[in-house]
Amino acid sequence: MSQNQVIIFDTTLRDGEQSPGASMTKDEKLRIARALEKLRVDVIEAGFAIASPGDFEAVKLIADTIQDSIICSLSRAVDADIDRAAEALAGANAGRIHTFIATSAIHMQHKLRLPPDQVVEQAVRAVKRARNLCADVEFSCEDAGRSEIDFLCRIIEAAIDAGARTINIPDTVGYAIPHQFADTIGQIIQRVPNADKAIFSVHCHNDLGLAVANSLAAVTAGARQVECTINGLGERAGNAALEEIVMAIKTRKDLLDVHTRIETENILAASRLVSGITGFPVQPNKAIVGANAFAHESGIHQDGVIKHRETYEIMSAQSVGWHTNKLSLGKLSGRNAFRSRLEELGIELSGEALNAAFARFKQLADRKHEIFDEDLQALVTDTLTEVEEHIRLIHLEVTSCMGQVPVASVQLNVDGKEQTARAEGSGPVDATFKAIEQLIGSAASLQLYSVNAITQGTDSQGEVTVRLEKAGRIVNGNGADTDIVVASAKAYINALNLMREGAYRAHPQTAGV
Amino acid sequence: MSQNQVIIFDTTLRDGEQSPGASMTKDEKLRIARALEKLRVDVIEAGFAIASPGDFEAVKLIADTIQDSIICSLSRAVDADIDRAAEALAGANAGRIHTFIATSAIHMQHKLRLPPDQVVEQAVRAVKRARNLCADVEFSCEDAGRSEIDFLCRIIEAAIDAGARTINIPDTVGYAIPHQFADTIGQIIQRVPNADKAIFSVHCHNDLGLAVANSLAAVTAGARQVECTINGLGERAGNAALEEIVMAIKTRKDLLDVHTRIETENILAASRLVSGITGFPVQPNKAIVGANAFAHESGIHQDGVIKHRETYEIMSAQSVGWHTNKLSLGKLSGRNAFRSRLEELGIELSGEALNAAFARFKQLADRKHEIFDEDLQALVTDTLTEVEEHIRLIHLEVTSCMGQVPVASVQLNVDGKEQTARAEGSGPVDATFKAIEQLIGSAASLQLYSVNAITQGTDSQGEVTVRLEKAGRIVNGNGADTDIVVASAKAYINALNLMREGAYRAHPQTAGV
Repeated sequence: MSQNQVIIFDTTLRDGEQSPGASMTKDEKLRIARALEKLRVDVIEAGFAIASPGDFEAVKLIADTIQDSIICSLSRAVDADIDRAAEALAGANAGRIHTFIATSAIHMQHKLRLPPDQVVEQAVRAVKRARNLCADVEFSCEDAGRSEIDFLCRIIEAAIDAGARTINIPDTVGYAIPHQFADTIGQIIQRVPNADKAIFSVHCHNDLGLAVANSLAAVTAGARQVECTINGLGERAGNAALEEIVMAIKTRKDLLDVHTRIETENILAASRLVSGITGFPVQPNKAIVGANAFAHESGIHQDGVIKHRETYEIMSAQSVGWHTNKLSLGKLSGRNAFRSRLEELGIELSGEALNAAFARFKQLADRKHEIFDEDLQALVTDTLTEVEEHIRLIHLEVTSCMGQVPVASVQLNVDGKEQTARAEGSGPVDATFKAIEQLIGSAASLQLYSVNAITQGTDSQGEVTVRLEKAGRIVNGNGADTDIVVASAKAYINALNLMREGAYRAHPQTAGV
Repeated sequence: MSQNQVIIFDTTLRDGEQSPGASMTKDEKLRIARALEKLRVDVIEAGFAIASPGDFEAVKLIADTIQDSIICSLSRAVDADIDRAAEALAGANAGRIHTFIATSAIHMQHKLRLPPDQVVEQAVRAVKRARNLCADVEFSCEDAGRSEIDFLCRIIEAAIDAGARTINIPDTVGYAIPHQFADTIGQIIQRVPNADKAIFSVHCHNDLGLAVANSLAAVTAGARQVECTINGLGERAGNAALEEIVMAIKTRKDLLDVHTRIETENILAASRLVSGITGFPVQPNKAIVGANAFAHESGIHQDGVIKHRETYEIMSAQSVGWHTNKLSLGKLSGRNAFRSRLEELGIELSGEALNAAFARFKQLADRKHEIFDEDLQALVTDTLTEVEEHIRLIHLEVTSCMGQVPVASVQLNVDGKEQTARAEGSGPVDATFKAIEQLIGSAASLQLYSVNAITQGTDSQGEVTVRLEKAGRIVNGNGADTDIVVASAKAYINALNLMREGAYRAHPQTAGV
């Protein structure tokens, strides 16, 4: 690896998943991991193996499947976590254990309730144990942004001596300001005597809108790994956005003099996949991946651009994958064309799953003239979600008629038994949800209802996300259909099935890197 | 004004409106201006007076109404622009003319087609003319981020001598990196001999995700005005987000040692108003104003937070206006309660407009138990939009029934004549739009269809935004209803009416600051 390469460490599947409402199934995680591998992300943090059996399974599946990227699992600096991480990573082509402990006075005192000496001791023991199980170990100082620099230098030196190859300095609460953060990173690298034996990494949160700038500032000070997520997903205001980090490094190579391995043309596809799976929309004015990010190009004729493209353009839309949205399949496409297009999108289906997806594709093609890649992604999300369908939608009828109260009739199969209900509501979606609740009685509350048209045009499919909450636990259900009311019913039922499965997860108590 | 005050210059109504699809009516602009005044924004850039009669009217209305903020109009460095800006600002309590010319070699050569000497001459003439009409003049060097520093110093010195009080250094294409941008600003302030006679300002675009960081870096180098927008709205990836700039300055006063006049508790209301009017959603992981920005607080019990709030929290949700969403009105609320609640929200209605809004409120209260402030904002957006209703929705009926092709029946009043149509579609919304198009034949294409639930709960209203495009011109129609299909029809018809009115606007050819 060249001295000027910045390692891109993606934590969409770990920190990104910690966003309330962003939890993903094992298969959804694998699809995202495949997209990350296609991007040539160097390290994929696939989860926090000990957090739940679901997390363990997801890390293991990704470790067993992905070939090109290093697969990483998070673990606290305790034996059980480290052992579990190693177990999940056993099948990886290249695995990494990422262990962390808090180093700020406020965290050591209020959360860990340990004196600094014991924190150093625990960190060293954890790194050594991890090194015995895995050659590639990363150590993080949680809440480093608010830690004393003398203590940081001391614990980092000890961790490197114990065998950590990568030292991560996170700004856990998004409190840093670029010039000060660069100064801190520079000082640490200079003061730690064995700094040359490790790669320094940063992990910045975006609470003040500065995650990308803080990461780049750290790179100018010598950091050579950046932890980031697709679309800047992550706890609270999220993490540094991978797409912004990568494109800033590419566009300002003149100033930053570093590079990454990322194949930037695959950025937009990854962004859309993550947005589709989590149901988190990307705002139109989001840098790089927002719908307006390159909006000169879409019919707005700006004098400057016409006269000379470079006047207003510092990077091309093509370089991050815009304009590759192509007509994918049509009504007459056969099963082989369907399967091979899915494979190009990184989705491998066979047997029953392929049959089910193909049947849905045919139904969709009857109603929608042009099937785009986004439609296929939505269709597969719908089909693949391997949640058991305790509850299935058999029939739905509801009329919107101005001046009349809407009444929905639904027929569900609940645990093998068909049941019907009718309910009034303030609109067709409300009536549908109420009718479903008459049969299920989940007592969950609706936290979010959002609709995205998947492609342009009036016959576009609607993709609906329904977020339900019950006793502090949150699930996201998705459903796609050209009929927005049917899509809403599917999403609501998907959320109910997820809740039954226990696919929701409480957040790991301490994953605060 | 103290040496440490940073002037907040909001350009949501000018640069923000340049986002494709974000154009606003005069009344919508006034509502946003009122929200900005309530935030205590120092300068409101209300528009680009010469761009269109609609722009002129909007700047004039805001100048005539707002008392506490300086009202600014943009103008190129040409006589007609400056005179028109002065005319629009005539009634302002405090007005500012903001004139600009491009200073980068690439822009001077390819866009202006002028040698540098003539560019300086034109700038000086423009500033002098503006000073004769208005005491407060701002001069901007367009594409300063890519301009030669020697030339920048020369033109800035000349502009200050000619009477400019504020010198703005925009990063028009979002190309700057914080440490380098701070260096540029610092050098300019140091090298321009009469720099002490002006306030230096920056205007940063977010193409690489660095707009906020670049603005703050400039402040550390001596800039004392920041140009920004609510939600970071603006061309392409937008401008620096006001809420992030302000909260970074407030939270990191220890490091930055400056302050603003902003009343931060009003930030969230302003964000929601701008998002509602433009139809641009705010992504959940957006800093400060995203739904998850303070997500610890919403049912996710994180160990650290329970033990000690400060462990994970650097600013409070209350400080930016979260948790002030209160139950506003109910079914039994009378006209006076309704009017006074609207006044608290900065909306003044009287006569027919009040009657119409109150009637809609009563209809809504019949269908929805709890009416929140957001419902009132949506209802007023619907009522107030003073577009003439060439086309009105009289009746709509459409059934969603799985296994059947949806058929919509619509009855419209088109220019005083009632007409009906029926059409099939791939879903109820598609069928409705097709039936409407049978009667209107607009030949416009659907660019965006988005739905937001206005409040939580299943009986929430849906607010639909429909963006139509025809021959490069774009309009945004909005509609709210508890029935999502009816809301969609209203939004589509609103967009058609806007298109007929010519309320769309082509983008000013040169507003590239």
